[in-house]
Amino acid sequence: MTQTVVFDVYGTLFDVQSVQNQCEIIFPDKGSEISQVWREKQLQYMFLHELMGHDVQFDDITERTLTYAVNSVGEDLTEKSRRKLMAGYQQLTLYDETQFVLSYLREKGYQLAVFSNGTDNMLRGLLNESGIHGDLDAVLSVDLAGHFKPTVSSYQVVTDQLNISAEEVLFVSSNGWDIAGAKNAGFQAAWINRSNGPEEVLGLSPDYEGENLTVLKSIL
Amino acid sequence: MTQTVVFDVYGTLFDVQSVQNQCEIIFPDKGSEISQVWREKQLQYMFLHELMGHDVQFDDITERTLTYAVNSVGEDLTEKSRRKLMAGYQQLTLYDETQFVLSYLREKGYQLAVFSNGTDNMLRGLLNESGIHGDLDAVLSVDLAGHFKPTVSSYQVVTDQLNISAEEVLFVSSNGWDIAGAKNAGFQAAWINRSNGPEEVLGLSPDYEGENLTVLKSIL
Repeated sequence: MTQTVVFDVYGTLFDVQSVQNQCEIIFPDKGSEISQVWREKQLQYMFLHELMGHDVQFDDITERTLTYAVNSVGEDLTEKSRRKLMAGYQQLTLYDETQFVLSYLREKGYQLAVFSNGTDNMLRGLLNESGIHGDLDAVLSVDLAGHFKPTVSSYQVVTDQLNISAEEVLFVSSNGWDIAGAKNAGFQAAWINRSNGPEEVLGLSPDYEGENLTVLKSIL
Repeated sequence: MTQTVVFDVYGTLFDVQSVQNQCEIIFPDKGSEISQVWREKQLQYMFLHELMGHDVQFDDITERTLTYAVNSVGEDLTEKSRRKLMAGYQQLTLYDETQFVLSYLREKGYQLAVFSNGTDNMLRGLLNESGIHGDLDAVLSVDLAGHFKPTVSSYQVVTDQLNISAEEVLFVSSNGWDIAGAKNAGFQAAWINRSNGPEEVLGLSPDYEGENLTVLKSIL
């Protein structure tokens, strides 16, 4: 029985498209490719560092993979552009429906939290800027585990910090690998399939699926 | 002091392009995208399953990610096409210089081995088919560790099985993440940068770099 709804942040509550637009302004005609490589490498580096047993953080990885992404299209990254694009990550825009859905769930009495691979600092900066911090009962970073999602020990941050059991959690993410990780940790899971992509074949299917967060209204 | 040269297999000794050609025949105009998604997802699923603590193997992952890749371009995979493309993975072509470089190193007296995330069965099938099995002193699969590269424990298969120290190994791979993993495990490493891509920024640089395997002639 769901009592707590826990949201992933990047791509789930916030649209990372605004960073792509900034990439495009700085690197005309290459913004889309840069931001795509950036995101892919950002994920891959989290996984690789975790597998190699390194203790590194999301902001460090985000900065290094930006360099890689810019280099991958044959461009160089100036210090000024680096600062601008990294700052863009702190000023992402909310998806249209995010505020409405959080308010709806709050009124229905659910406990609400976010849980992200982002650092605690990055998350609090972003959430304060956006104005939804007040709607959340908890802001949880993998910093508390010292391990990135989708390791089992990372998701235990949620149950440990909120003092609840895994079955009480409905985890919401637009990332298929994050849904698999949440199911692997014993949570219920709703996949926000914004791009209408195929389901991952990791053997851990979501309990629910919708094209945006309003699907939660029909679930809860 | 290098005494043993250990090669990654897929993309390092063997060209995976031939599978792309088969994809193109079955799915005209979509072969390139399918094979690219297939390879990316194959890597990602190895990392994800390892992070989630699952015991799965390369052949199972290769088959599931083929389904995902075909679905990702809006196509369905028939049983016949599935069998054909999976069989293609057992009949990859060697890069032009592979045979020559292996013979050269053998004559120079180096111990030669392969070490791959592929299963022992897949590796032996592929190597027998290609005719280079006889040039190798050892065929090593991560099966022996129960963990995929780039975990530290996976690379220990090499030193354990060959009864050598990490410093005696020159590890050769076209995959940047594999180079980082090898360096992380204490090996010397030569990166075969076939696509002239940017270096990974994982904090673990290769000792050597070349555009194909012939660079080993100038190193050893």
